[in-house]
Amino acid sequence: MLKKSWIQIEASSDFSIYNIPFGVFELKNGKARCASAIGDLIIDLHEMQLLGFFDHLDLPDDVFNQRYLNPFIQLGKKITNRVRNRLIDLLDENNTALRQKKEWHQRVFIPMDEVTMLMPLDVPNYTDFYSSMYHAENVGKMFRDPDHALLPNWKHLPVAYHGRASSIIVSGVNIHRPKGQIKPSDAGPVFGESKKLDIEIEMAFVTNRNTAMGEAIPVEKAQEHIFGLMVFNDWSARDIQKWEYVPLGPFLGKNFASSVSPWIVTLEALEPFKVPLSPQQPAVLPYLEEKERFSYDIHLDAFIEHEKFNAFKITSTNYKYMYWTMAQQLAHHTVNGCNIEVGDLYASGTISGPEPDAYGSLLELSWGGKHDIDMPDGSKRTFLEDGDTVIIKGYSEHKGIRVGFGEVRTSILPAK
Amino acid sequence: MLKKSWIQIEASSDFSIYNIPFGVFELKNGKARCASAIGDLIIDLHEMQLLGFFDHLDLPDDVFNQRYLNPFIQLGKKITNRVRNRLIDLLDENNTALRQKKEWHQRVFIPMDEVTMLMPLDVPNYTDFYSSMYHAENVGKMFRDPDHALLPNWKHLPVAYHGRASSIIVSGVNIHRPKGQIKPSDAGPVFGESKKLDIEIEMAFVTNRNTAMGEAIPVEKAQEHIFGLMVFNDWSARDIQKWEYVPLGPFLGKNFASSVSPWIVTLEALEPFKVPLSPQQPAVLPYLEEKERFSYDIHLDAFIEHEKFNAFKITSTNYKYMYWTMAQQLAHHTVNGCNIEVGDLYASGTISGPEPDAYGSLLELSWGGKHDIDMPDGSKRTFLEDGDTVIIKGYSEHKGIRVGFGEVRTSILPAK
Repeated sequence: MLKKSWIQIEASSDFSIYNIPFGVFELKNGKARCASAIGDLIIDLHEMQLLGFFDHLDLPDDVFNQRYLNPFIQLGKKITNRVRNRLIDLLDENNTALRQKKEWHQRVFIPMDEVTMLMPLDVPNYTDFYSSMYHAENVGKMFRDPDHALLPNWKHLPVAYHGRASSIIVSGVNIHRPKGQIKPSDAGPVFGESKKLDIEIEMAFVTNRNTAMGEAIPVEKAQEHIFGLMVFNDWSARDIQKWEYVPLGPFLGKNFASSVSPWIVTLEALEPFKVPLSPQQPAVLPYLEEKERFSYDIHLDAFIEHEKFNAFKITSTNYKYMYWTMAQQLAHHTVNGCNIEVGDLYASGTISGPEPDAYGSLLELSWGGKHDIDMPDGSKRTFLEDGDTVIIKGYSEHKGIRVGFGEVRTSILPAK
Repeated sequence: MLKKSWIQIEASSDFSIYNIPFGVFELKNGKARCASAIGDLIIDLHEMQLLGFFDHLDLPDDVFNQRYLNPFIQLGKKITNRVRNRLIDLLDENNTALRQKKEWHQRVFIPMDEVTMLMPLDVPNYTDFYSSMYHAENVGKMFRDPDHALLPNWKHLPVAYHGRASSIIVSGVNIHRPKGQIKPSDAGPVFGESKKLDIEIEMAFVTNRNTAMGEAIPVEKAQEHIFGLMVFNDWSARDIQKWEYVPLGPFLGKNFASSVSPWIVTLEALEPFKVPLSPQQPAVLPYLEEKERFSYDIHLDAFIEHEKFNAFKITSTNYKYMYWTMAQQLAHHTVNGCNIEVGDLYASGTISGPEPDAYGSLLELSWGGKHDIDMPDGSKRTFLEDGDTVIIKGYSEHKGIRVGFGEVRTSILPAK
């Protein structure tokens, strides 16, 4: 029998009693606090702690009275799960402890549309993987050799690069079209606005530990060190990227911005949505071998919105289309002794499905700019235009249980 | 006439009265404080502030009673230079203000060999450039096309990639040989210890500002945002790097560790060592054009030390062998709106000179492992062996003025 909350929750809400994600919101006085969400409400976790609802959970004072979730996350899963489970209990229709304290509800619950959500993490390090085979194949077909779309290393290790941590922004923060060096095929490089501004639909996981240098995290232990996931939009200026990226990888084509959802959904909340993954061929090296290979069934829809038309869905993909798992990514990342930190973000790389309607970037949807994508007002897109707002929504739904991430919403402002 | 200090300083000291670098040291109680250095002494800057020597310099209380230099650096050059200039004044042989207060000397000065220097920066972001032409040409000749050693973009933009900030360590912290995936030329990939562990002799600059996203730093303003420089050793596992780096750049071949000198030498201290650089051909785009092109004459010597032999010099290179300047690097890095942060490190890339005795990596010195490098005990190296200690020293010297960085010393421990 499904759990129900005494809070009224729409069936379409991302924030069911099964979710209980974590985020940070701005108070009217400009300070920040940590929050969870249920239905259309956010839950002020600091007020909950002050009211004694988290007594005996071994929480430090003021752990939610913080600008970032890092101090909470670094308590580790044993403690962070206790908080989430306590919230699930308190919000259950059969629990009266908070339900009956109506005088406290205004202190604890705030309508979601009245608050501004903030970047919930202080991100010490950000890594971007390249772990969806369909995406890597599409890129390989477009830019390299259609008959050997995957590079020789791709099926042996989860290819990745370090990204820029400073420019990770939360949903609602808009970006200016980047400028940079672009090389037309028939002339020398020029400086100008990117004409090929693109999205990459990704998921990113958050680590909850500082490891020592030299410590490798075994693949079978990796999940313990992952607090949860966020929806991630890895903005890409394809024309800048194309000219700069050989031989050391993407740089200014990416580092002007990456956008995340305001809510971190825990791995525990995603447990009902696990989907098995096929065995890998060729077999991987032992340090990457998994007894149980799985991803999560997370629907990812991307929309373009414009003053001339409402949000228009351009693609739907799914986190289940992963070749490399989070556990493999983290095991690989640390196998050389690279230390990880609390709040690090590890993005999946563009997630594309096998069919063109599940491609995770405009680069693929327009096949390198060759095919127009029709918008509802009769206009066309290959890449993004100024005034476009990109919205990426992520959610899982299974047997009446829905757990979602909310949205990542970003508007493209003209170049400065 | 040259300045002299009332502190006795050997002519060979890196820490003349013209230097006054900044670092962080560990107190006996385990806490940390910011310091400068003169001769064989470190200067406890917190004690200096408590004693009133920095009154009227607009310093916040406790700005030196910190684990990292970031709070000091972010005060900006106007303030940080005031502190450095005050120290130069106080240490001048003609100034008695501190000289005569002999009872305070023990509080303020500590023999360098009695303290442990700590990682002086909390590094939010680390970027590694690839800005020495001789190095890029050598790599191109070895791995790509000897007749077209430089890739087409190399002379148009300062190529760079994001590195791992978490694993930057200070001189004296040793590293374990990394393990990882390596692909022999005639078989599939295997997992094992890197057999090609290498150094890269680099300099890294430190920024003193948080910029807003979207803000580009013009090339002519870039120096204002650079606090100083450190000697940087960008450890590289060539065999891991070779298999992983196409198409997204270096990752596990680099991110297990990078080592820095404990002292940050300010740009102002390096002013006497400016050397003009030749005009660039082909001409660069206007956002990279400089009225005055210069680097600094910083000698960089690398040594291998082993229990069987004393420190043995393997190469001498110089920071003057740069094609792209710091100003160009910073202007390029921000031209797309990428924001920078206080304490960011921007490394030069391997610095190689035109002749083989000035190559900045074992990869080049051994020409891809083809030539042995003879050690004093009759043993040979192509790459590093367990038990080797690598020392990189950096200093400038001109007309009797010497300004140095001390050393970056790191021993190679066996793989874990």
